[in-house]
Amino acid sequence: MARSDGRKDDQLRDIKLTRGYQDWPAGSVLVEFGRTRVLCAASVSEGVPRWRKGSGLGWLTAEYAMLPSATNTRGDRESVKGRIGGRTHEISRLIGRSLRACIDLQAIGENTIQLDCDVIQADGGTRTAAITGAYVALADAVTWLNAANLLKDPQPLSCSVAAVSVGVVGGRVRLDLPYEEDVRAEVDMNVVATDAGTLIEVQGTGEGATFARSTLDRMLDVAMEGCAEITRLQAEALALPYPGELPEPKGK
Amino acid sequence: MARSDGRKDDQLRDIKLTRGYQDWPAGSVLVEFGRTRVLCAASVSEGVPRWRKGSGLGWLTAEYAMLPSATNTRGDRESVKGRIGGRTHEISRLIGRSLRACIDLQAIGENTIQLDCDVIQADGGTRTAAITGAYVALADAVTWLNAANLLKDPQPLSCSVAAVSVGVVGGRVRLDLPYEEDVRAEVDMNVVATDAGTLIEVQGTGEGATFARSTLDRMLDVAMEGCAEITRLQAEALALPYPGELPEPKGK
Amino acid sequence: MARSDGRKDDQLRDIKLTRGYQDWPAGSVLVEFGRTRVLCAASVSEGVPRWRKGSGLGWLTAEYAMLPSATNTRGDRESVKGRIGGRTHEISRLIGRSLRACIDLQAIGENTIQLDCDVIQADGGTRTAAITGAYVALADAVTWLNAANLLKDPQPLSCSVAAVSVGVVGGRVRLDLPYEEDVRAEVDMNVVATDAGTLIEVQGTGEGATFARSTLDRMLDVAMEGCAEITRLQAEALALPYPGELPEPKGK
Amino acid sequence: MARSDGRKDDQLRDIKLTRGYQDWPAGSVLVEFGRTRVLCAASVSEGVPRWRKGSGLGWLTAEYAMLPSATNTRGDRESVKGRIGGRTHEISRLIGRSLRACIDLQAIGENTIQLDCDVIQADGGTRTAAITGAYVALADAVTWLNAANLLKDPQPLSCSVAAVSVGVVGGRVRLDLPYEEDVRAEVDMNVVATDAGTLIEVQGTGEGATFARSTLDRMLDVAMEGCAEITRLQAEALALPYPGELPEPKGK
Amino acid sequence: MARSDGRKDDQLRDIKLTRGYQDWPAGSVLVEFGRTRVLCAASVSEGVPRWRKGSGLGWLTAEYAMLPSATNTRGDRESVKGRIGGRTHEISRLIGRSLRACIDLQAIGENTIQLDCDVIQADGGTRTAAITGAYVALADAVTWLNAANLLKDPQPLSCSVAAVSVGVVGGRVRLDLPYEEDVRAEVDMNVVATDAGTLIEVQGTGEGATFARSTLDRMLDVAMEGCAEITRLQAEALALPYPGELPEPKGK
Amino acid sequence: MARSDGRKDDQLRDIKLTRGYQDWPAGSVLVEFGRTRVLCAASVSEGVPRWRKGSGLGWLTAEYAMLPSATNTRGDRESVKGRIGGRTHEISRLIGRSLRACIDLQAIGENTIQLDCDVIQADGGTRTAAITGAYVALADAVTWLNAANLLKDPQPLSCSVAAVSVGVVGGRVRLDLPYEEDVRAEVDMNVVATDAGTLIEVQGTGEGATFARSTLDRMLDVAMEGCAEITRLQAEALALPYPGELPEPKGK
Repeated sequence: MARSDGRKDDQLRDIKLTRGYQDWPAGSVLVEFGRTRVLCAASVSEGVPRWRKGSGLGWLTAEYAMLPSATNTRGDRESVKGRIGGRTHEISRLIGRSLRACIDLQAIGENTIQLDCDVIQADGGTRTAAITGAYVALADAVTWLNAANLLKDPQPLSCSVAAVSVGVVGGRVRLDLPYEEDVRAEVDMNVVATDAGTLIEVQGTGEGATFARSTLDRMLDVAMEGCAEITRLQAEALALPYPGELPEPKGK
Repeated sequence: MARSDGRKDDQLRDIKLTRGYQDWPAGSVLVEFGRTRVLCAASVSEGVPRWRKGSGLGWLTAEYAMLPSATNTRGDRESVKGRIGGRTHEISRLIGRSLRACIDLQAIGENTIQLDCDVIQADGGTRTAAITGAYVALADAVTWLNAANLLKDPQPLSCSVAAVSVGVVGGRVRLDLPYEEDVRAEVDMNVVATDAGTLIEVQGTGEGATFARSTLDRMLDVAMEGCAEITRLQAEALALPYPGELPEPKGK
Repeated sequence: MARSDGRKDDQLRDIKLTRGYQDWPAGSVLVEFGRTRVLCAASVSEGVPRWRKGSGLGWLTAEYAMLPSATNTRGDRESVKGRIGGRTHEISRLIGRSLRACIDLQAIGENTIQLDCDVIQADGGTRTAAITGAYVALADAVTWLNAANLLKDPQPLSCSVAAVSVGVVGGRVRLDLPYEEDVRAEVDMNVVATDAGTLIEVQGTGEGATFARSTLDRMLDVAMEGCAEITRLQAEALALPYPGELPEPKGK
Repeated sequence: MARSDGRKDDQLRDIKLTRGYQDWPAGSVLVEFGRTRVLCAASVSEGVPRWRKGSGLGWLTAEYAMLPSATNTRGDRESVKGRIGGRTHEISRLIGRSLRACIDLQAIGENTIQLDCDVIQADGGTRTAAITGAYVALADAVTWLNAANLLKDPQPLSCSVAAVSVGVVGGRVRLDLPYEEDVRAEVDMNVVATDAGTLIEVQGTGEGATFARSTLDRMLDVAMEGCAEITRLQAEALALPYPGELPEPKGK
Repeated sequence: MARSDGRKDDQLRDIKLTRGYQDWPAGSVLVEFGRTRVLCAASVSEGVPRWRKGSGLGWLTAEYAMLPSATNTRGDRESVKGRIGGRTHEISRLIGRSLRACIDLQAIGENTIQLDCDVIQADGGTRTAAITGAYVALADAVTWLNAANLLKDPQPLSCSVAAVSVGVVGGRVRLDLPYEEDVRAEVDMNVVATDAGTLIEVQGTGEGATFARSTLDRMLDVAMEGCAEITRLQAEALALPYPGELPEPKGK
Repeated sequence: MARSDGRKDDQLRDIKLTRGYQDWPAGSVLVEFGRTRVLCAASVSEGVPRWRKGSGLGWLTAEYAMLPSATNTRGDRESVKGRIGGRTHEISRLIGRSLRACIDLQAIGENTIQLDCDVIQADGGTRTAAITGAYVALADAVTWLNAANLLKDPQPLSCSVAAVSVGVVGGRVRLDLPYEEDVRAEVDMNVVATDAGTLIEVQGTGEGATFARSTLDRMLDVAMEGCAEITRLQAEALALPYPGELPEPKGK
């Protein structure tokens, strides 16, 4: 059975990375995987949370959220409900963990990089799109920190980070599921990988079904190919100059 | 003293209204007043809140929020803080009240229109931009309801709604203040008006200063001129066809 | 059509200001506008909120609340609900802003004045009664601060502050609406003014209706006359001596 | 050592019960024990909480709270903190339990009586004053229910309820402690009793000290005498007619 | 009528005290009163809450909670509800107060002892079981503090603390009520007493009934006998050596 | 380098499964992996959440929590903080998802099975221990439902579920990490598998490091062997009869 959008099973959706989407944050990227659109901002602030003060280490953390109007049926606003749901918590933690894997927190000194991933429109794969976009925003924030003379080491990023979803739909392993496939998937997996082809995070879940080890292996193969292609698109986007005004060096 | 962006005192910033910005809501408009950008979505759902059931009347309500990355210095996320701040509450109520003034809730039957105004980038005047954009999103939602055959009266909107800020900066009455003027303003006023030139809401505040009745009168003159111009831009934007796919009539 | 309580359209209800209603706060005033009764307390504490420390400036803030038993139908307690509603937030902010307009925060040094306006009985106009009573409580707190030798400048109040509501009911502009008129009003406005006849805050709202500029002008005329009369009553109340025991000078 | 207010050890403070303090609730009583002033309102509503529906039984519950300005040093507002403290919870539960002991919930049918005890000024013994005042407000609410023809049995109250505090201060058993004695007390006890001389609740606590059984016995003697006197004052207050307008009978 | 478990009216259930139930806290005791099982842990941490810093005094506080699965019908988890109920608050405060009565907070220096009483299985009398177990855990924590050389005075405990419930069931005064008797009790009382036979806390409540002074006296007699027996069991349990590894002395 | 507890790299800790640990829930199991101890209860209630009513399907959900005293350093109580942390949310969701994979929700009719996993003592691997114990509690609850005649199909469990952690410590792949290894691990993985050798969930995370695909493969091999052994222990435990009293059949 063909995919509704005509893609091959191991083919990504159209991916766009628009840098400099907002004017104020040090990095701001609109990432699109087909109709999925996530705004990823990297804000820099001096200082670190209290429990980290005096350590000489910086901090990087992430918050994920969805606009109420991002989904097919409007979702309730978590600020109005007064509590953050489990899914939101889980994804925020995943994004933070994934990006911390590529940065040397010693190199950024006692500064904090806050990643905000706000889903403007959801059509499956928002968490992996968020990680993909957040990496590009983070790279811009590092350029900003460098210009501001706030880095102890000018190369704090040890690798690049890309992520993609893969799943089993109707018995077939498919890459980068849109919502319509996601709800029907028997197995669902998110893979976060580096430009060196190593892994940062693998999360595979049987959705009301269990899966064989061989299926897991096949999903990993497809996802890692996908990540390699996304890595190429990130590098392409980052080959262009910083999309805004860089700060003056501090402490000079 | 000239304005930093070269405008005349009674001149608006560049205003853009992009309809169909998102795919799922019945109305979705990105409104821009200079660098201020607000995403206004109008979502339709069947049914009304419990306290209104059986009344035969529909309901319209609004929620305003700001992305953490929208401001010059990153703001904390209200969902993470677990409570909505007073300013957010106040603006959400203002938007809802302003738009309820133009719609006949009997005509939409027991359906709810939810307006979500999410600030993507803030540079002063977000609440008046939100009202301006929300009206256009609402007009699209009404077209959608009409196509779906959900209206009791095909013309539920009795007027159009536009809003603008005006203030006194350095002793001069100025229209449509960007953030940089807003923080310095001695008096700050928001005016919501209709295409008939009548008023829906007037809120004027001395910011650590008091103001004469004559100043108030002058601010009203300038703001009402501004609203008339915005009304013209809204009509222009709405002259184009509905920017998406309309639903099939229900109950046929 | 005559008013149910026999008043003329531009006539205030009976207004009483009882100073020294409570024993502990530096200022404590029970204000009555007809059946509306609000207890306004001004508490002084040394120090300022963290974000203001070291500025040399004092702080003034306000909280408004309603006893559950204050209204015709019992209201839920916000402490039990665990969150403050939008209306409460909005009024608290309005009271704080209005009173900050009359005080020189430099003159009070790094001290905080907390205004608490608790509605004992509600019959319309609670927010404007609260502002009116809070000014008198604030004046008493200033006397207290003076006696305690805590002021840098013995005259920190630059003006007095009075407030009143005005509305359009059945097509007639009426002053100081009780609840029974308030629910029927087509337009509702709150005006905060000084003894110099200048304005601090103007908030006018069409309640399911829009209003002409000329109506707004007429409402302002009536409200400003009302404020002038209330100002006279405040001065009269404050002409009597401080209603309690004054503190010993500090730092002597 | 004499008491600072000149009272004998087993003497009550001046107690006043002002009925009809507010206009809207079915019962509203301002109770004063010396400088302690608590506003007790009894509001009647049709229906019962969900877990009690269809039982044929009514419900009575209580909420206690303190105005921020009621105490010597201003207290934080629990609605602002977003949670009710343990002390508030504890006292609310005590008041509800105490008053439920005197009422036949079958007799009031599926109606709810909500008691609100708001402390206007605190000077020790607020919880026992609240119980004392709440009983009188409850008696008025019962009169109101009777007039409204909402009772299944016209005499739902089986006894009257009075409460007082007693403590050991400087080794002496003293009745009705003001704040100044309360903070110094070695033992603190609250006793709730009926007009029949029976007990509803006894709560005695050593405050950083333990106490002998004989001390407990002596405290009970003194407290029960105090309750008898308070019972007399309640009866006196209730001998006067209902202080407002009674409702028309329902269902006629 | 005989008791369902065959006990005499003034007889305790089987009581077990298992020290060293957990490995990490300084004291950890599983206390069993029949089927009621409460895990009591005493954790030591350096420092005291902010409001107590620099006082030279230590602090002791308690938290009580129930596992959802501890009760006959599963209870909701308070962390999920987002707020602690009144009953939980009340019992936590009672435990803390009771244990603070036996310890010299000066002797433990600026250290905090946190008592956690988590109900594993509930069958009546959980709060009195918790106090009984918490005392034994506290005694172990004191031994731990002594070994760590953190005490200013090696004997900070001035007495031991035991607690038991007593009630009137079917007109008979009965000791140590299981759930099945508790729900039927006309009067319910909790008594906290020391090994010297003095009282720390007495809480007696008529449950929909009132009670005579003579009944109160009889309940106290029975409860104090019960506490004496529990005190003996605590001493027996504490006669064995400390059930874990003691810390090395600090500051040597 | 040898493991501190002398185990081989691919060896499990001592695992114990104690059924019938509590008296009230339909299933109650204390599971121990070395010093890690988790109490897993399965409570049955009639009915399903609102969003599922009328579907004919049952529901299974899980909540995970840690006693404050379970960890080396006492943790704050989430009920006191008023919000559930991200980690708790994440693990609760994982447990629920894992167990839903083995049960036919149609077969249990519109009944709910609530799994509560409360960590009594934490020493690494609490989430996988919880899943392992929860399966055994679930199996007992199914026996209970069968006895009560509440199942539509007497065999609703399609497989058994076991879970274990695996990690890379000092470059070596090790099974079932205690806390001391867990904090030092470069890679951390949790695997949930069935008795058929298929997978339910795989979550692998680089902790400040990335990992090769070959490492992932080796970890999976070791973890799946571990799960097979745990599955054997679960079967052994469940071979004994139901550890309590079974209910009478309903609806007969």
